[in-house]
Amino acid sequence: MNPNQTKNDAITRQEDDFAQWYTDVCKKAELMDYTSVKGFIDYLPYGYAIWEEIQNFCNRKFKAKGAKNVYLPMVIPQSLFATEKEHVEGFAPECLVATIGGGSELSDPLIIRPTSEILFSELYKRQVKSYRDLPKKYNQWCSVVRWEKTTRPFLRGSEFLWQEGHCLFETEEEARDDALTMLEVYDSIGTELLAIPFVKGQKTEHEKFAGAVATYSIEALMPDGKALQSGTTHYLGTGFAKAADIEFLGRDQKLNTPHQTSWGVSTRLLGALIMVHGDDNGLVLPPRVAPIQTVIIPIRGDKVPAVMEECHKLLDELTKLGVRAEIDETDHTPGWKFAEWEMKGVPLRIEIGPRDLENGNMALARRYNGAKDIVPLSEIEKIPAILEEIQAGMFEKAKDYLAKHIKTANSWDELKAILDEGGYARMMWHEDEELEMKVKEVTNGGTARCLPFNEKPFGDTCPLDGKPADRVIYFAKAY
Amino acid sequence: MNPNQTKNDAITRQEDDFAQWYTDVCKKAELMDYTSVKGFIDYLPYGYAIWEEIQNFCNRKFKAKGAKNVYLPMVIPQSLFATEKEHVEGFAPECLVATIGGGSELSDPLIIRPTSEILFSELYKRQVKSYRDLPKKYNQWCSVVRWEKTTRPFLRGSEFLWQEGHCLFETEEEARDDALTMLEVYDSIGTELLAIPFVKGQKTEHEKFAGAVATYSIEALMPDGKALQSGTTHYLGTGFAKAADIEFLGRDQKLNTPHQTSWGVSTRLLGALIMVHGDDNGLVLPPRVAPIQTVIIPIRGDKVPAVMEECHKLLDELTKLGVRAEIDETDHTPGWKFAEWEMKGVPLRIEIGPRDLENGNMALARRYNGAKDIVPLSEIEKIPAILEEIQAGMFEKAKDYLAKHIKTANSWDELKAILDEGGYARMMWHEDEELEMKVKEVTNGGTARCLPFNEKPFGDTCPLDGKPADRVIYFAKAY
Repeated sequence: MNPNQTKNDAITRQEDDFAQWYTDVCKKAELMDYTSVKGFIDYLPYGYAIWEEIQNFCNRKFKAKGAKNVYLPMVIPQSLFATEKEHVEGFAPECLVATIGGGSELSDPLIIRPTSEILFSELYKRQVKSYRDLPKKYNQWCSVVRWEKTTRPFLRGSEFLWQEGHCLFETEEEARDDALTMLEVYDSIGTELLAIPFVKGQKTEHEKFAGAVATYSIEALMPDGKALQSGTTHYLGTGFAKAADIEFLGRDQKLNTPHQTSWGVSTRLLGALIMVHGDDNGLVLPPRVAPIQTVIIPIRGDKVPAVMEECHKLLDELTKLGVRAEIDETDHTPGWKFAEWEMKGVPLRIEIGPRDLENGNMALARRYNGAKDIVPLSEIEKIPAILEEIQAGMFEKAKDYLAKHIKTANSWDELKAILDEGGYARMMWHEDEELEMKVKEVTNGGTARCLPFNEKPFGDTCPLDGKPADRVIYFAKAY
Repeated sequence: MNPNQTKNDAITRQEDDFAQWYTDVCKKAELMDYTSVKGFIDYLPYGYAIWEEIQNFCNRKFKAKGAKNVYLPMVIPQSLFATEKEHVEGFAPECLVATIGGGSELSDPLIIRPTSEILFSELYKRQVKSYRDLPKKYNQWCSVVRWEKTTRPFLRGSEFLWQEGHCLFETEEEARDDALTMLEVYDSIGTELLAIPFVKGQKTEHEKFAGAVATYSIEALMPDGKALQSGTTHYLGTGFAKAADIEFLGRDQKLNTPHQTSWGVSTRLLGALIMVHGDDNGLVLPPRVAPIQTVIIPIRGDKVPAVMEECHKLLDELTKLGVRAEIDETDHTPGWKFAEWEMKGVPLRIEIGPRDLENGNMALARRYNGAKDIVPLSEIEKIPAILEEIQAGMFEKAKDYLAKHIKTANSWDELKAILDEGGYARMMWHEDEELEMKVKEVTNGGTARCLPFNEKPFGDTCPLDGKPADRVIYFAKAY
């Protein structure tokens, strides 16, 4: 990099070109890199470390809900894939298919998994014989491939990393419960880790997963006013189980078909994280998910050994306090370092120079609101609490933004105006796929994001066609 | 399962059919299951949990050596794959190739990665411009595909899980050091986690990795006398870097080519673990890698509530002591439970019945040597120490076996006899690919496992052809 680079010339400004700002941050914060195959990216150490924090968080939560990790094949025989009709129609157009193995043409081509419902069904068919074998709650972390025409880092890739939970239950009630329980777990990724407020709700028939009876989602709102579907859970009914011929001997001594669920979050969460909190200086990470929570910048440390000594003392104390901290000992200027670590979104920066040291002070700079304080060195022990304050502050800021961008639409014009401006249009609604298609056309791309759980009906008529309406819906333009 | 099953009829005995014993254990201990595609297996929760323990161990060790985790694409364009000649010749015959994406034929087919040297080279080409950008030490956990004709769970699969480290250095010395340093890390997986003594050494020219200058390996010895290559590290020289056109501005202000290494261990380690320690009752796990380190079996717990209470008290104490413990509260008989947990190789079993409780005692049964003691309940606090004793005891037992199965061959006849009997034949040796091929033919499959580091020359003549010989070699039949 150019040592004279200042933070301002580093990336495109959000208001100039939000999409370009996003890809600039992805690249300049060294989260990812492009490869020679479109839609397949390199996850670099800094980006992958964030994903690992999300994985650790989820593994703890999943385990508490009884899920166990497994790993299933990355390929699905084409003949097997064809067994569940709606599912195959949904996924077939975007499949990557292997036709040659060991130099010979394969008699049954292999689809690189776009999702693994079929494989889990095949496994469960062998494992489940009696109600005593239920429930089954397996999860896997893997990458999946969906051949996409338009791709963007983390948001839409031909290959992406995700987890997919696949469960089998004795009763419909348990399965429906599971889909909702796991949606709550997904919501907690936002409230407890990423400082992102999600809208939780059910998908319309038109937007639901291919092969599902009901799909639920968490939706995040981006600063450009577009929604980002960030996780989904599905009650699959008995369709996959029937297609795979899974039956178990029930408590009634009869053969029953089990009820299935699946649920997944992906590296899309990284996209949400970047957009929800980022600014014109780059990434802004909430402390709990930040690979580096505090960076220590020595000022004139190369000239004054006591400064470097103090930096290492502080690093040791922070490490003991359980804070993920680093010292930047490179030979760049302090200004360059400030810009670099702001770009990488480190939540808290400590600066110490000779004069600070003389006065027994250090400077603390918060990344998310730019606040900078001079405090006594002894306050190093308060840093875990400060990081938690930052986490809470970032969440509040994001909640404020969300609340300001949910507006009621009472007519076609209002709906169009709200979606043009950006954010959610809330309306009374009745299930109607054709009307949904018309909204998309009229609003130039607005889609039904979900029927939100946190909203009670506030009327009984659909403002678009005047028909009786009994539920609330959120429309938005979306990624 | 049949509730009347006894442990003896559960699996084939080792001496009757070792290969069948192995697959029986893989299945009955619920480590894996077969799928409808040959060579692609399901890793079930119990097997995958062992793999996760290995991953956690390695991640700590790798990080301490400066490696950072990344994730690179699962596909390599055929045109890119062709750039390193020896490498492509080595891997092309066993590639799975995708030719259709999104319904259309791909102009440049995509090879599902069999290993990722080429992809890391492509990444490093973009990242490395100056000596200041070096070293690069990246690692990824992923699955790779190699189309195999003969497959066995964990030992040889068309898809397997592994980690692959790929590093770039300024100098040959640093790169050669890295290959040896990472071999020591791999050796520590045996000494510190799996209780497996490895033979460490260098591969012959004939056995080295396609495209490497030098390959090093850890080799484990199985109870059937065959060696199992369990991890390899490679000094790749500058071949891949040259093929990918990677150059950096050196300290000499000239363009230099960096030196590369790669290193990997795979789920083969599970195969080694199963075979080295297992017996006719099933799996035997060293405590440090066991997903469940201690299982508590209540005797008549359904009839005597105090027994169940005591079991839960013990579980709480074990959990506080950091022991991974479980109670088997199923309605099976104690005998069935003993057989089940022996099959799963849980290192230590606690049994408590009403009479034990009256006397303030519990029974402790060690899986690896069958020892069973009655001890006061207060000794629960000694269990972490007992588990460490078991770990050490298992390692000693395995080391004894290895030491007894390294024998010196002074002639063709002795070589043949040693390899027929099983184990390593040690000999003085000179690099000679033709002689290596002849050994394979004459001994019906014996291969050069490695030139071991721990052995000094004990002669100066090759016993097979009388030529001058300056190094020690180990031959064995191998998986």
